[in-house]
Amino acid sequence: MRIYNSKAAPNARRVRIFLAEKKLDLPMTDVDLGLLEHKTPSYSDINPFQGVPALVLDDGAVIAESVAICRYFEELHPEPPLFGTGARGRAEVEMWQRRLELYLFMPVALAFRHSHPAMRVLESPQLPEWAEVNRARALVGMARFDEALREREFIAGDAYSIADITGLVALDFTRPAKIAIPESLTHLRRWRETLAARPSAAA
Amino acid sequence: MRIYNSKAAPNARRVRIFLAEKKLDLPMTDVDLGLLEHKTPSYSDINPFQGVPALVLDDGAVIAESVAICRYFEELHPEPPLFGTGARGRAEVEMWQRRLELYLFMPVALAFRHSHPAMRVLESPQLPEWAEVNRARALVGMARFDEALREREFIAGDAYSIADITGLVALDFTRPAKIAIPESLTHLRRWRETLAARPSAAA
Repeated sequence: MRIYNSKAAPNARRVRIFLAEKKLDLPMTDVDLGLLEHKTPSYSDINPFQGVPALVLDDGAVIAESVAICRYFEELHPEPPLFGTGARGRAEVEMWQRRLELYLFMPVALAFRHSHPAMRVLESPQLPEWAEVNRARALVGMARFDEALREREFIAGDAYSIADITGLVALDFTRPAKIAIPESLTHLRRWRETLAARPSAAA
Repeated sequence: MRIYNSKAAPNARRVRIFLAEKKLDLPMTDVDLGLLEHKTPSYSDINPFQGVPALVLDDGAVIAESVAICRYFEELHPEPPLFGTGARGRAEVEMWQRRLELYLFMPVALAFRHSHPAMRVLESPQLPEWAEVNRARALVGMARFDEALREREFIAGDAYSIADITGLVALDFTRPAKIAIPESLTHLRRWRETLAARPSAAA
Protein backbone atom coordinates (compact mmCIF):
# COMPACT_ATOMS: atom_id res chain seq x y z
CA MET A 1 0.00 0.00 0.00
CA ARG A 2 1.08 3.56 -0.65
CA ILE A 3 -0.41 6.96 0.10
CA TYR A 4 -0.15 9.87 -2.31
CA ASN A 5 0.34 12.72 0.10
CA SER A 6 0.76 16.46 0.17
CA LYS A 7 2.54 18.27 3.00
CA ALA A 8 0.49 21.38 2.17
CA ALA A 9 -3.01 19.86 1.94
CA PRO A 10 -5.09 19.95 5.14
CA ASN A 11 -7.02 16.86 3.99
CA ALA A 12 -3.78 14.91 3.71
CA ARG A 13 -2.89 15.97 7.24
CA ARG A 14 -6.19 14.53 8.51
CA VAL A 15 -5.10 11.14 7.18
CA ARG A 16 -1.56 11.44 8.57
CA ILE A 17 -2.88 12.28 12.06
CA PHE A 18 -5.39 9.41 11.84
CA LEU A 19 -2.64 6.93 10.92
CA ALA A 20 -0.41 8.26 13.74
CA GLU A 21 -3.25 7.69 16.24
CA LYS A 22 -3.58 4.12 14.91
CA LYS A 23 0.24 3.73 15.10
CA LEU A 24 0.35 2.81 11.41
CA ASP A 25 3.24 3.74 9.17
CA LEU A 26 2.70 3.74 5.41
CA PRO A 27 4.99 4.56 2.52
CA MET A 28 4.12 7.95 1.08
CA THR A 29 4.76 9.71 -2.20
CA ASP A 30 4.57 13.48 -2.17
CA VAL A 31 2.43 15.20 -4.80
CA ASP A 32 3.47 18.84 -5.31
CA LEU A 33 0.24 20.84 -5.58
CA GLY A 34 2.19 24.04 -6.29
CA LEU A 35 3.57 22.40 -9.43
CA LEU A 36 0.03 21.15 -10.23
CA GLU A 37 1.27 17.54 -10.10
CA HIS A 38 -2.25 16.47 -9.06
CA LYS A 39 -3.53 17.70 -12.45
CA THR A 40 -1.07 15.63 -14.51
CA PRO A 41 -2.23 12.65 -16.61
CA SER A 42 -0.18 10.24 -14.46
CA TYR A 43 -1.84 11.38 -11.22
CA SER A 44 -5.25 11.54 -12.92
CA ASP A 45 -4.79 7.84 -13.72
CA ILE A 46 -4.61 7.24 -9.96
CA ASN A 47 -7.41 9.65 -9.04
CA PRO A 48 -9.51 11.01 -11.92
CA PHE A 49 -10.97 13.58 -9.50
CA GLN A 50 -7.39 14.85 -8.95
CA GLY A 51 -7.72 15.06 -5.17
CA VAL A 52 -4.94 14.38 -2.70
CA PRO A 53 -4.56 12.18 -0.65
CA ALA A 54 -5.20 8.85 -2.35
CA LEU A 55 -4.44 5.34 -1.13
CA VAL A 56 -3.26 2.74 -3.64
CA LEU A 57 -3.84 -0.85 -2.50
CA ASP A 58 -1.54 -3.75 -3.29
CA ASP A 59 -3.77 -4.91 -6.14
CA GLY A 60 -3.72 -1.43 -7.68
CA ALA A 61 -7.20 -0.39 -6.59
CA VAL A 62 -7.46 3.16 -5.30
CA ILE A 63 -9.32 4.57 -2.28
CA ALA A 64 -9.49 8.35 -2.55
CA GLU A 65 -11.07 10.96 -0.25
CA SER A 66 -9.47 11.41 3.16
CA VAL A 67 -12.39 10.13 5.26
CA ALA A 68 -12.74 7.04 3.03
CA ILE A 69 -9.05 6.26 3.56
CA CYS A 70 -9.46 6.67 7.32
CA ARG A 71 -12.56 4.47 7.32
CA TYR A 72 -10.65 1.73 5.49
CA PHE A 73 -7.97 1.68 8.20
CA GLU A 74 -10.62 1.83 10.93
CA GLU A 75 -12.10 -1.37 9.48
CA LEU A 76 -8.70 -3.08 9.25
CA HIS A 77 -7.44 -1.84 12.64
CA PRO A 78 -10.46 -1.13 14.85
CA GLU A 79 -8.41 -0.15 17.93
CA PRO A 80 -8.47 2.55 19.16
CA PRO A 81 -11.92 3.27 17.69
CA LEU A 82 -11.84 6.68 16.02
CA PHE A 83 -15.27 6.58 14.36
CA GLY A 84 -17.17 6.00 17.62
CA THR A 85 -18.61 2.86 19.24
CA GLY A 86 -22.17 1.56 19.12
CA ALA A 87 -24.98 2.84 16.91
CA ARG A 88 -25.40 6.07 18.82
CA GLY A 89 -21.68 6.71 19.26
CA ARG A 90 -20.98 6.19 15.57
CA ALA A 91 -23.86 8.49 14.61
CA GLU A 92 -22.59 11.16 17.00
CA VAL A 93 -19.07 11.03 15.57
CA GLU A 94 -20.52 11.29 12.06
CA MET A 95 -22.64 14.26 13.15
CA TRP A 96 -19.72 16.18 14.68
CA GLN A 97 -17.41 15.25 11.84
CA ARG A 98 -19.93 16.66 9.36
CA ARG A 99 -20.56 19.77 11.44
CA LEU A 100 -16.83 20.46 11.70
CA GLU A 101 -16.47 20.01 7.96
CA LEU A 102 -19.45 22.15 7.00
CA TYR A 103 -19.25 24.89 9.61
CA LEU A 104 -15.49 25.20 10.14
CA PHE A 105 -13.21 23.30 7.78
CA MET A 106 -15.01 24.39 4.59
CA PRO A 107 -15.50 28.07 5.47
CA VAL A 108 -11.84 28.29 6.50
CA ALA A 109 -10.75 26.57 3.29
CA LEU A 110 -12.96 28.84 1.16
CA ALA A 111 -11.65 31.95 2.94
CA PHE A 112 -8.11 30.77 2.21
CA ARG A 113 -8.72 29.75 -1.40
CA HIS A 114 -10.48 32.99 -2.29
CA SER A 115 -7.97 35.35 -0.68
CA HIS A 116 -4.46 33.86 -0.54
CA PRO A 117 -2.09 34.90 -3.37
CA ALA A 118 -0.74 31.32 -3.59
CA MET A 119 -4.22 30.12 -4.66
CA ARG A 120 -4.57 32.40 -7.69
CA VAL A 121 -4.05 29.56 -10.14
CA LEU A 122 -5.93 26.77 -8.31
CA GLU A 123 -8.97 28.89 -7.40
CA SER A 124 -9.80 31.08 -10.35
CA PRO A 125 -11.51 33.50 -10.23
CA GLN A 126 -10.79 34.39 -6.61
CA LEU A 127 -13.79 36.17 -5.11
CA PRO A 128 -12.70 38.37 -2.16
CA GLU A 129 -16.32 38.93 -1.13
CA TRP A 130 -16.82 35.16 -0.82
CA ALA A 131 -13.67 34.93 1.31
CA GLU A 132 -15.16 37.52 3.67
CA VAL A 133 -18.53 35.73 3.90
CA ASN A 134 -16.70 32.54 4.82
CA ARG A 135 -14.47 34.23 7.41
CA ALA A 136 -17.64 35.39 9.13
CA ARG A 137 -19.20 31.90 8.89
CA ALA A 138 -16.09 30.30 10.37
CA LEU A 139 -16.41 32.64 13.37
CA VAL A 140 -20.08 31.70 13.84
CA GLY A 141 -19.10 28.04 13.67
CA MET A 142 -16.30 28.50 16.19
CA ALA A 143 -18.69 30.05 18.71
CA ARG A 144 -21.06 27.08 18.37
CA PHE A 145 -18.25 24.54 18.80
CA ASP A 146 -17.01 26.50 21.81
CA GLU A 147 -20.47 26.17 23.38
CA ALA A 148 -20.57 22.43 22.61
CA LEU A 149 -17.16 21.97 24.26
CA ARG A 150 -18.22 23.68 27.46
CA GLU A 151 -19.00 20.42 29.22
CA ARG A 152 -16.90 17.80 27.49
CA GLU A 153 -13.29 17.08 26.66
CA PHE A 154 -13.69 16.01 23.03
CA ILE A 155 -16.16 17.23 20.46
CA ALA A 156 -18.18 14.02 20.17
CA GLY A 157 -18.06 13.14 23.88
CA ASP A 158 -15.54 11.54 26.24
CA ALA A 159 -13.41 9.85 23.59
CA TYR A 160 -11.05 11.28 21.00
CA SER A 161 -12.33 10.69 17.45
CA ILE A 162 -11.82 11.57 13.79
CA ALA A 163 -14.05 14.61 14.39
CA ASP A 164 -11.38 16.03 16.72
CA ILE A 165 -8.80 15.51 13.97
CA THR A 166 -10.96 17.51 11.55
CA GLY A 167 -11.31 20.23 14.19
CA LEU A 168 -7.57 20.51 14.86
CA VAL A 169 -6.69 20.62 11.17
CA ALA A 170 -9.37 23.26 10.52
CA LEU A 171 -8.26 25.42 13.47
CA ASP A 172 -4.60 25.24 12.39
CA PHE A 173 -5.73 26.21 8.89
CA THR A 174 -7.21 29.49 10.25
CA ARG A 175 -3.70 30.98 10.33
CA PRO A 176 -2.97 31.01 6.56
CA ALA A 177 -6.67 31.89 6.06
CA LYS A 178 -6.08 34.96 8.27
CA ILE A 179 -8.91 34.21 10.70
CA ALA A 180 -8.12 34.99 14.34
CA ILE A 181 -9.60 32.59 16.90
CA PRO A 182 -11.29 34.90 19.43
CA GLU A 183 -9.72 34.97 22.90
CA SER A 184 -13.20 34.69 24.39
CA LEU A 185 -13.69 31.15 23.05
CA THR A 186 -11.94 29.54 26.00
CA HIS A 187 -13.40 26.04 25.56
CA LEU A 188 -12.44 25.94 21.90
CA ARG A 189 -8.91 27.11 22.75
CA ARG A 190 -8.55 24.56 25.56
CA TRP A 191 -9.72 21.83 23.14
CA ARG A 192 -7.25 22.88 20.49
CA GLU A 193 -4.38 22.85 23.01
CA THR A 194 -5.36 19.35 24.15
CA LEU A 195 -5.40 18.08 20.56
CA ALA A 196 -2.19 19.89 19.58
CA ALA A 197 -0.36 18.33 22.56
CA ARG A 198 -0.93 14.77 21.27
CA PRO A 199 2.09 13.29 19.45
CA SER A 200 -0.13 12.67 16.39
CA ALA A 201 -0.49 16.43 15.84
CA ALA A 202 3.05 16.53 14.46
CA ALA A 203 2.08 14.21 11.60
CA MET B 1 -38.30 9.06 17.52
CA ARG B 2 -39.19 11.94 15.25
CA ILE B 3 -37.57 13.55 12.24
CA TYR B 4 -37.63 17.29 11.64
CA ASN B 5 -38.03 17.36 7.90
CA SER B 6 -38.26 19.81 5.02
CA LYS B 7 -40.01 18.99 1.75
CA ALA B 8 -37.78 21.56 0.02
CA ALA B 9 -34.37 20.55 1.39
CA PRO B 10 -32.35 18.10 -0.73
CA ASN B 11 -30.57 16.84 2.38
CA ALA B 12 -33.89 15.91 3.95
CA ARG B 13 -34.79 14.00 0.79
CA ARG B 14 -31.60 11.95 1.12
CA VAL B 15 -32.83 10.75 4.53
CA ARG B 16 -36.38 10.07 3.30
CA ILE B 17 -35.10 7.94 0.40
CA PHE B 18 -32.73 6.10 2.75
CA LEU B 19 -35.58 5.31 5.16
CA ALA B 20 -37.79 4.17 2.26
CA GLU B 21 -35.05 1.77 1.10
CA LYS B 22 -34.87 0.40 4.66
CA LYS B 23 -38.70 0.20 4.75
CA LEU B 24 -38.77 2.36 7.86
CA ASP B 25 -41.55 4.79 8.59
CA LEU B 26 -40.93 7.60 11.08
CA PRO B 27 -43.12 10.42 12.33
CA MET B 28 -42.05 13.69 10.75
CA THR B 29 -42.54 17.34 11.57
CA ASP B 30 -42.15 19.79 8.73
CA VAL B 31 -39.89 22.79 9.22
CA ASP B 32 -40.71 25.64 6.81
CA LEU B 33 -37.39 26.99 5.56
CA GLY B 34 -39.18 29.72 3.57
CA LEU B 35 -40.56 31.07 6.85
CA LEU B 36 -37.07 30.67 8.41
CA GLU B 37 -38.49 28.26 10.99
CA HIS B 38 -35.05 26.60 11.18
CA LYS B 39 -33.63 29.89 12.53
CA THR B 40 -36.15 30.19 15.39
CA PRO B 41 -35.08 29.74 19.03
CA SER B 42 -37.29 26.66 19.38
CA TYR B 43 -35.66 24.89 16.42
CA SER B 44 -32.20 26.09 17.51
CA ASP B 45 -32.82 24.29 20.79
CA ILE B 46 -33.13 21.08 18.75
CA ASN B 47 -30.23 21.84 16.40
CA PRO B 48 -28.01 24.79 17.34
CA PHE B 49 -26.48 24.60 13.84
CA GLN B 50 -30.00 25.19 12.44
CA GLY B 51 -29.74 22.48 9.80
CA VAL B 52 -32.61 20.32 8.60
CA PRO B 53 -33.14 17.34 8.90
CA ALA B 54 -32.64 16.40 12.54
CA LEU B 55 -33.60 13.20 14.35
CA VAL B 56 -34.84 13.44 17.94
CA LEU B 57 -34.46 10.19 19.89
CA ASP B 58 -36.89 8.98 22.54
CA ASP B 59 -34.65 10.26 25.34
CA GLY B 60 -34.51 13.72 23.74
CA ALA B 61 -30.99 13.40 22.32
CA VAL B 62 -30.57 14.75 18.80
CA ILE B 63 -28.73 13.33 15.80
CA ALA B 64 -28.37 16.01 13.13
CA GLU B 65 -26.71 15.91 9.69
CA SER B 66 -28.36 13.73 7.08
CA VAL B 67 -25.56 11.18 6.72
CA ALA B 68 -25.31 10.79 10.50
CA ILE B 69 -29.04 10.07 10.66
CA CYS B 70 -28.70 7.48 7.87
CA ARG B 71 -25.71 5.89 9.60
CA TYR B 72 -27.70 5.55 12.82
CA PHE B 73 -30.46 3.63 11.02
CA GLU B 74 -27.86 1.53 9.18
CA GLU B 75 -26.51 0.44 12.56
CA LEU B 76 -29.98 -0.35 13.92
CA HIS B 77 -31.26 -1.99 10.71
CA PRO B 78 -28.25 -3.35 8.80
CA GLU B 79 -30.33 -4.91 5.98
CA PRO B 80 -30.14 -4.07 3.16
CA PRO B 81 -26.63 -2.67 3.66
CA LEU B 82 -26.51 0.84 2.19
CA PHE B 83 -23.05 1.86 3.44
CA GLY B 84 -21.25 -1.06 1.76
CA THR B 85 -20.01 -4.41 3.08
CA GLY B 86 -16.52 -5.36 4.21
CA ALA B 87 -13.59 -3.01 4.77
CA ARG B 88 -13.07 -2.33 1.10
CA GLY B 89 -16.75 -2.05 0.25
CA ARG B 90 -17.39 0.42 3.04
CA ALA B 91 -14.38 2.51 2.02
CA GLU B 92 -15.57 2.53 -1.59
CA VAL B 93 -19.07 3.70 -0.63
CA GLU B 94 -17.54 6.42 1.54
CA MET B 95 -15.30 7.46 -1.38
CA TRP B 96 -18.16 7.72 -3.88
CA GLN B 97 -20.43 9.36 -1.36
CA ARG B 98 -17.79 12.04 -0.73
CA ARG B 99 -17.08 12.47 -4.42
CA LEU B 100 -20.75 12.92 -5.19
CA GLU B 101 -21.05 15.46 -2.40
CA LEU B 102 -17.94 17.43 -3.31
CA TYR B 103 -18.08 17.29 -7.10
CA LEU B 104 -21.82 17.28 -7.76
CA PHE B 105 -24.14 17.92 -4.81
CA MET B 106 -22.24 20.93 -3.51
CA PRO B 107 -21.57 22.68 -6.82
CA VAL B 108 -25.24 22.23 -7.74
CA ALA B 109 -26.34 23.56 -4.35
CA LEU B 110 -23.99 26.55 -4.61
CA ALA B 111 -25.17 27.33 -8.14
CA PHE B 112 -28.75 27.27 -6.85
CA ARG B 113 -28.12 29.27 -3.70
CA HIS B 114 -26.17 31.99 -5.50
CA SER B 115 -28.61 32.46 -8.38
CA HIS B 116 -32.18 31.56 -7.43
CA PRO B 117 -34.43 34.48 -6.39
CA ALA B 118 -35.94 32.35 -3.58
CA MET B 119 -32.50 32.19 -1.92
CA ARG B 120 -31.97 35.94 -1.62
CA VAL B 121 -32.56 35.94 2.13
CA LEU B 122 -30.88 32.65 3.05
CA GLU B 123 -27.76 33.21 0.93
CA SER B 124 -26.77 36.82 1.25
CA PRO B 125 -24.95 38.23 -0.60
CA GLN B 126 -25.71 36.14 -3.68
CA LEU B 127 -22.65 36.05 -5.95
CA PRO B 128 -23.69 35.33 -9.56
CA GLU B 129 -20.07 34.75 -10.59
CA TRP B 130 -19.78 32.00 -7.95
CA ALA B 131 -22.97 30.41 -9.27
CA GLU B 132 -21.41 30.27 -12.74
CA VAL B 133 -18.14 28.76 -11.46
CA ASN B 134 -20.15 26.05 -9.72
CA ARG B 135 -22.34 25.34 -12.74
CA ALA B 136 -19.15 24.65 -14.68
CA ARG B 137 -17.78 22.46 -11.87
CA ALA B 138 -20.99 20.45 -11.72
CA LEU B 139 -20.62 19.72 -15.44
CA VAL B 140 -17.01 18.57 -14.96
CA GLY B 141 -18.17 16.32 -12.13
CA MET B 142 -21.00 14.88 -14.21
CA ALA B 143 -18.58 13.90 -16.97
CA ARG B 144 -16.36 12.08 -14.47
CA PHE B 145 -19.30 10.22 -12.92
CA ASP B 146 -20.50 9.30 -16.40
CA GLU B 147 -17.10 7.74 -17.10
CA ALA B 148 -17.17 5.86 -13.78
CA LEU B 149 -20.65 4.49 -14.61
CA ARG B 150 -19.56 3.16 -18.00
CA GLU B 151 -19.00 -0.35 -16.67
CA ARG B 152 -21.17 -0.67 -13.62
CA GLU B 153 -24.78 -0.35 -12.60
CA PHE B 154 -24.38 1.64 -9.39
CA ILE B 155 -21.79 4.26 -8.57
CA ALA B 156 -19.91 2.26 -5.92
CA GLY B 157 -20.15 -1.09 -7.72
CA ASP B 158 -22.80 -3.79 -8.11
CA ALA B 159 -24.94 -2.81 -5.14
CA TYR B 160 -27.19 0.19 -4.57
CA SER B 161 -25.86 2.39 -1.74
CA ILE B 162 -26.24 5.73 -0.01
CA ALA B 163 -23.88 7.18 -2.63
CA ASP B 164 -26.53 6.50 -5.29
CA ILE B 165 -29.07 8.35 -3.15
CA THR B 166 -26.76 11.37 -3.01
CA GLY B 167 -26.34 11.17 -6.78
CA LEU B 168 -30.07 11.04 -7.53
CA VAL B 169 -30.86 13.93 -5.20
CA ALA B 170 -28.05 16.02 -6.69
CA LEU B 171 -29.11 15.28 -10.27
CA ASP B 172 -32.74 16.15 -9.50
CA PHE B 173 -31.48 19.37 -7.91
CA THR B 174 -29.90 20.44 -11.23
CA ARG B 175 -33.31 21.54 -12.48
CA PRO B 176 -33.96 24.42 -10.03
CA ALA B 177 -30.23 25.19 -10.27
CA LYS B 178 -30.70 25.58 -14.04
CA ILE B 179 -27.97 23.13 -15.03
CA ALA B 180 -28.79 20.94 -18.02
CA ILE B 181 -27.50 17.37 -17.87
CA PRO B 182 -25.74 16.92 -21.24
CA GLU B 183 -27.40 14.42 -23.62
CA SER B 184 -23.96 12.97 -24.33
CA LEU B 185 -23.61 11.60 -20.77
CA THR B 186 -25.51 8.41 -21.55
CA HIS B 187 -24.21 6.36 -18.60
CA LEU B 188 -25.10 9.09 -16.14
CA ARG B 189 -28.57 9.40 -17.67
CA ARG B 190 -29.13 5.62 -17.59
CA TRP B 191 -28.04 5.59 -13.93
CA ARG B 192 -30.40 8.41 -13.02
CA GLU B 193 -33.32 6.63 -14.71
CA THR B 194 -32.55 3.42 -12.83
CA LEU B 195 -32.49 5.27 -9.51
CA ALA B 196 -35.58 7.35 -10.29
CA ALA B 197 -37.54 4.17 -11.11
CA ARG B 198 -37.12 2.76 -7.59
CA PRO B 199 -40.18 3.30 -5.36
CA SER B 200 -37.91 5.09 -2.81
CA ALA B 201 -37.37 7.96 -5.26
CA ALA B 202 -40.88 9.23 -4.52
CA ALA B 203 -39.93 9.82 -0.87
